[in-house]
Amino acid sequence: MPPVAGVRLAAAAAGVRYAGRDDVMLATLAPGSVLAGVTTRSATRAASVLDIEAKLADPGSADRGAAFIVNAGNANAFTGTNGHDAVVAVTRAVASATNVPVSRVLSCSTGVIGERLPDDRITAALDGLVAELDPHAWQAAAGAIMTTDTFAKGAWRQVQTDTGPVTLAGFAKGSGMIAPDMATMLVFLFTDARLSQGLLQRLVSDAVTRTFNCITVDSDTSTSDTLLMAATGQAGPELDRDADTCAGFTAALEALMADLAQQVVRDGEGATKFITIEVCGAADDADARRVALATANSPLVKTAIAGEDPNWGRVVMAVGKSGARADRDRLSIRFGEIEVAREGWVSPDYREALGAAYMRRQEIEIGIDLGLGGEGTARVWTCDLTHGYISINADYRS
Amino acid sequence: MPPVAGVRLAAAAAGVRYAGRDDVMLATLAPGSVLAGVTTRSATRAASVLDIEAKLADPGSADRGAAFIVNAGNANAFTGTNGHDAVVAVTRAVASATNVPVSRVLSCSTGVIGERLPDDRITAALDGLVAELDPHAWQAAAGAIMTTDTFAKGAWRQVQTDTGPVTLAGFAKGSGMIAPDMATMLVFLFTDARLSQGLLQRLVSDAVTRTFNCITVDSDTSTSDTLLMAATGQAGPELDRDADTCAGFTAALEALMADLAQQVVRDGEGATKFITIEVCGAADDADARRVALATANSPLVKTAIAGEDPNWGRVVMAVGKSGARADRDRLSIRFGEIEVAREGWVSPDYREALGAAYMRRQEIEIGIDLGLGGEGTARVWTCDLTHGYISINADYRS
Repeated sequence: MPPVAGVRLAAAAAGVRYAGRDDVMLATLAPGSVLAGVTTRSATRAASVLDIEAKLADPGSADRGAAFIVNAGNANAFTGTNGHDAVVAVTRAVASATNVPVSRVLSCSTGVIGERLPDDRITAALDGLVAELDPHAWQAAAGAIMTTDTFAKGAWRQVQTDTGPVTLAGFAKGSGMIAPDMATMLVFLFTDARLSQGLLQRLVSDAVTRTFNCITVDSDTSTSDTLLMAATGQAGPELDRDADTCAGFTAALEALMADLAQQVVRDGEGATKFITIEVCGAADDADARRVALATANSPLVKTAIAGEDPNWGRVVMAVGKSGARADRDRLSIRFGEIEVAREGWVSPDYREALGAAYMRRQEIEIGIDLGLGGEGTARVWTCDLTHGYISINADYRS
Repeated sequence: MPPVAGVRLAAAAAGVRYAGRDDVMLATLAPGSVLAGVTTRSATRAASVLDIEAKLADPGSADRGAAFIVNAGNANAFTGTNGHDAVVAVTRAVASATNVPVSRVLSCSTGVIGERLPDDRITAALDGLVAELDPHAWQAAAGAIMTTDTFAKGAWRQVQTDTGPVTLAGFAKGSGMIAPDMATMLVFLFTDARLSQGLLQRLVSDAVTRTFNCITVDSDTSTSDTLLMAATGQAGPELDRDADTCAGFTAALEALMADLAQQVVRDGEGATKFITIEVCGAADDADARRVALATANSPLVKTAIAGEDPNWGRVVMAVGKSGARADRDRLSIRFGEIEVAREGWVSPDYREALGAAYMRRQEIEIGIDLGLGGEGTARVWTCDLTHGYISINADYRS
């Protein structure tokens, strides 16, 4: 991944919980950087999330830059007033070490819920982090924020403009406790593009709707999940909503976020299959989304796919339970290009062997046409539910 | 289980799908019997469910009795017009064999979705079933309707009245695709009590709300699930809503249904733990139910319990995602009598060893006090999510 002008990164092993691996990441953003973000809607969200929400609502001056500080291993969630105190201690220490106002230091924590964050271990690592800041340290930064992830997740895009290329790059973590309703994980995005804070926030919020809010691993929603984006303003022309350049940037941003979102699903805990659910013919988009999520979150659908069983009756079940308007006798289902059911019953040409062969693929697409003649569509990405998920989650904390 | 006056049962091996086991059950109800029922709200419900709904809405004369005919192995769901034709064929044949009007013959089917029901195998077994009708055949009847169940589920209660005892007895099947929103499985209840069809329906609907609609195994809702109850009117006084006897009958009915509902959860696919979620202090009952179901259906909570991991942070997560009004800093959590968290953080006296010891029990109770000072409460029963669930469901149909 190429550097993004104005962005420097470092990682360190602070011993927050894990031994022998990096678990703290610092990113600094040059003066002039604007920030945007989206956070979980959980009613029990963590102290750092509340702090981020307050700071993004009142972003202050960009004159002295900004910083992101992230730890893995401890979510600092459900830790009472101590949780807030830990956020204050960490962000103040980062402000001091990087010469950034504390109002522009955003902290994220991911890991176990309900245990006191050892903030002193994070602050003790700061001098070393600052000394190692490097525009190329993507891999180390992405690795330091992992919990049950099995691989580091990064992606980048470039957009050509009249004044040269604009770069977008980012990384993410997350593989369980992933469900829409934002934010479903930690995601950090960076660009050297020049645009206003208001426009950046609008573009980020729009793209989240079609990317990170369209993935689910297990229907569970984290208390901590956060997406942050910084634009350093060091490349390209000033972006304006109406300009062609902005259209290119917007498309690149959505592609970048879709790429990272799909990486999260591919690394879903225990996942062996990547599944796309496509719904059309619904009364409206909200109904289509209900059907897509009911199917993607159904344990019976997910286990059938894990077992490579073309058990399309479970898709019928999921449509039925979704709460969306549906007519059994207009419902059609396909596996990839294979028509399985048409208007309420198995297709005349469908043979079990066709479905069974399709299910052996690693990338599965289930198409559901509700046949109601409406314009409602939705697309959701998910993974299968396997013995691996049980093994990981029945023994995560011990 | 004792006989219920006016009820006779028989089971047979019709070869609908399985070999070497009973898979069809016939119950006949004496003249004078009134019927009530509750059916799934799935939008893709099966042909037999639609037929039952129509017949219960227009119950007709009780003069010639009634009959229930049930098969396991094939749900006759999502089978187009053929599904309806099969219901007509089976119910007509039962009407003819038992001398009951077809409008009083209710059929249920459970098993695989989307395959044509071999109704001729069921009708071919009817003469043998009628010849074997027996008031004592509870065990055979309960066994014949099983699919992935590992044990037959039956229960009974007796209520004393001035004119002698009234008996209630029933059986159920179901262990996966179990979630509230009625009916979550097949349940057949019988009593010799004397009461009107209207009162029976009201009592059944009320009791379902507090029993079968309070269980969940995997959040999936079947296309076929149905609860039917028959009252033959052959024992006790005429029950009236205001009489003491009716209060005793109502309590016995709810206890019977709770017993059977809990048996279904205990036989949840792959279940090793029986879990009760108790929620209080919510703004209202609907919010309490949201929290209880979000917790009971959370894969992360269910796998933690499977792993005997007292990971109460996942309960915090489930409260947060439930959509109910909640205040993180008023939330308290207990495992049985052990206070785990109080008003937003771990309790000062809680020790991990206490939670770990509690989690080794087979019966787990999780108490959640939202602390909002409201009157809202809910209780839900569920089970853990284990490797067994994956094994059963990744290879059910093949």
